[in-house]
Amino acid sequence: MSSPQGTVQTPGAGPKVVALGGGHGLSASLSALRQVTDQLTAVVTVADDGGSSGRLRSEFGVLPPGDLRQALAALCGDDEWGRTWAEVLQHRFASDGELSGHAVGNLLIVALWERLAQRSSGAAPETSGVDAIADRHVAGLDWVARLLGARGRVLPMCAVPLRITAQVEGLDPENPALVRTVRGQSEVASTPGRVRSVALEPPDPPACPEAVAAVRDADGVVLGPGSWFTSVLVHLLVPELATALHETKARRILTLNLAPQAGETRGFSPERHLEVLAAHAPDLRVDVVVADDAFVADHPALVDAATRLGAELVMADVAWTDGSPKHDPQRLARVYAKVLSS
Amino acid sequence: MSSPQGTVQTPGAGPKVVALGGGHGLSASLSALRQVTDQLTAVVTVADDGGSSGRLRSEFGVLPPGDLRQALAALCGDDEWGRTWAEVLQHRFASDGELSGHAVGNLLIVALWERLAQRSSGAAPETSGVDAIADRHVAGLDWVARLLGARGRVLPMCAVPLRITAQVEGLDPENPALVRTVRGQSEVASTPGRVRSVALEPPDPPACPEAVAAVRDADGVVLGPGSWFTSVLVHLLVPELATALHETKARRILTLNLAPQAGETRGFSPERHLEVLAAHAPDLRVDVVVADDAFVADHPALVDAATRLGAELVMADVAWTDGSPKHDPQRLARVYAKVLSS
Repeated sequence: MSSPQGTVQTPGAGPKVVALGGGHGLSASLSALRQVTDQLTAVVTVADDGGSSGRLRSEFGVLPPGDLRQALAALCGDDEWGRTWAEVLQHRFASDGELSGHAVGNLLIVALWERLAQRSSGAAPETSGVDAIADRHVAGLDWVARLLGARGRVLPMCAVPLRITAQVEGLDPENPALVRTVRGQSEVASTPGRVRSVALEPPDPPACPEAVAAVRDADGVVLGPGSWFTSVLVHLLVPELATALHETKARRILTLNLAPQAGETRGFSPERHLEVLAAHAPDLRVDVVVADDAFVADHPALVDAATRLGAELVMADVAWTDGSPKHDPQRLARVYAKVLSS
Repeated sequence: MSSPQGTVQTPGAGPKVVALGGGHGLSASLSALRQVTDQLTAVVTVADDGGSSGRLRSEFGVLPPGDLRQALAALCGDDEWGRTWAEVLQHRFASDGELSGHAVGNLLIVALWERLAQRSSGAAPETSGVDAIADRHVAGLDWVARLLGARGRVLPMCAVPLRITAQVEGLDPENPALVRTVRGQSEVASTPGRVRSVALEPPDPPACPEAVAAVRDADGVVLGPGSWFTSVLVHLLVPELATALHETKARRILTLNLAPQAGETRGFSPERHLEVLAAHAPDLRVDVVVADDAFVADHPALVDAATRLGAELVMADVAWTDGSPKHDPQRLARVYAKVLSS
């Protein structure tokens, strides 16, 4: 079972774009970007410890597959074949039994990883190093991408499962300034406190080499939208990936969330999102910050915060027209098309 | 998500052949027949209640998918794509946790059935009748067949899950002639007693219409090898399927097991296999009985038993050359090619 690498991405029209994130935010980003370019790569967080992913991670010691599955589904082919398999992979079992809550695609991805590991377990020593482990993970994802006829490639940011820890204040009503450590993505994402910073366990994890190469080779990289600490900033905590993001010649685009998230960014203004990003990656320069006027209260403050990152602020109608604070992929696509061609 | 029916079977060379069975026996049969014809249909038992299938059946009330998955894998495409997906679908999770023992293909098949049922749950009343339920099951299997690039089609014998009951003697050491009812395929297959007959619950289940049509339209039908009561004879207990087997113009080929099975056919001679078949379907005529001389002790008795079924006895070397009592698909293919062309 050799790797199908290289057969997923059809060299095609449009700039080479890498979207970094996780969960629903990354799905929105990919749904927009697939309309702009045929050369699209998703780089996905691997720190989830809740739900189906958390159970698989704890049962098999594998990377949490859920965010990877979701990104793959967002890139599925436009035909009945691609849409059907995406729907099947997104299907979640519901019962009173042991499978309830598992997404089918998660199980399929883990099975591919296990097969590839078994295939290479009797092979030469170089197949057990960090890079070889990353290769097997990437090969498994490429097989699913081929199944879906995916319009791009999906890579993990890192080939070892990560744990997010956060410094959180406001958890103790007696002493609101007390900072506590909260462990695990699902705990951090739903904390009733105020997240000050996040870190990774293990610290300085090895990046997925293909993800680093994709960022370095890109014409544009897109960070956000998404759970700000646990899906967006976390990419800057993987050293080789952060270095690649600092050094790439690509246009760096940061797409702000339209509303704070209950839990990790409760009460955050748009400019506060930029400030915590700067706090986690002080030297990172950004070229463009994308925001929606309807969700910005203090325009001058946001301009200031963007300017401190070196970025031009692009205001555009990117939310759904029903007023919900979610990105409309069609509208976001028009902004990306413009920003990436300028 | 419409049915991909009609796109699986490429009208091609060779006779139209239907193989009925379940488990490893059916896999051997299909592995042989795929070398003989491009127009191949498997009709598969749906009475398994053990292992991964039994758990899924009890958790979701679905048809047991295991024998269907195994038949699909036996028909996988010859290229890397087909072989890889067959391997992934055959992959069985092994852990200390809730997924251990589940075959990935079983989970995928159940997910397809659930999606198709959800798709049609809001539709017109005619989509909830027995035939519509069979259609959805067949459509789900056709999707997996397309995924595998399968060299044929796989159908359930019936679209409701069945339970096998057996009349078994020899279970009571005090009274060896006492006949007891044993319930469930896994119990019957492994009974330490002597199986006299099998029956189905519910009795007279509705056959899968596509399976009936395939048998009626076939040039050849192949029964066996396989677990004699629980995978082979059981097809004769589904009335419409049995009628089709009686009435079809196809050549009826019965391939004998090479050895008795610990459990349901312990101590059975080849001729005893034919006698219990005749006892379950007294009017069934068979054209050819395939046996291997090396595993037949009493040749005249077997000729007699075959003659009583109306069959010509074809003796051939069909076992693996290592002497193990298993069919070699290459050797079996040569026999089928000859028998089907005569």
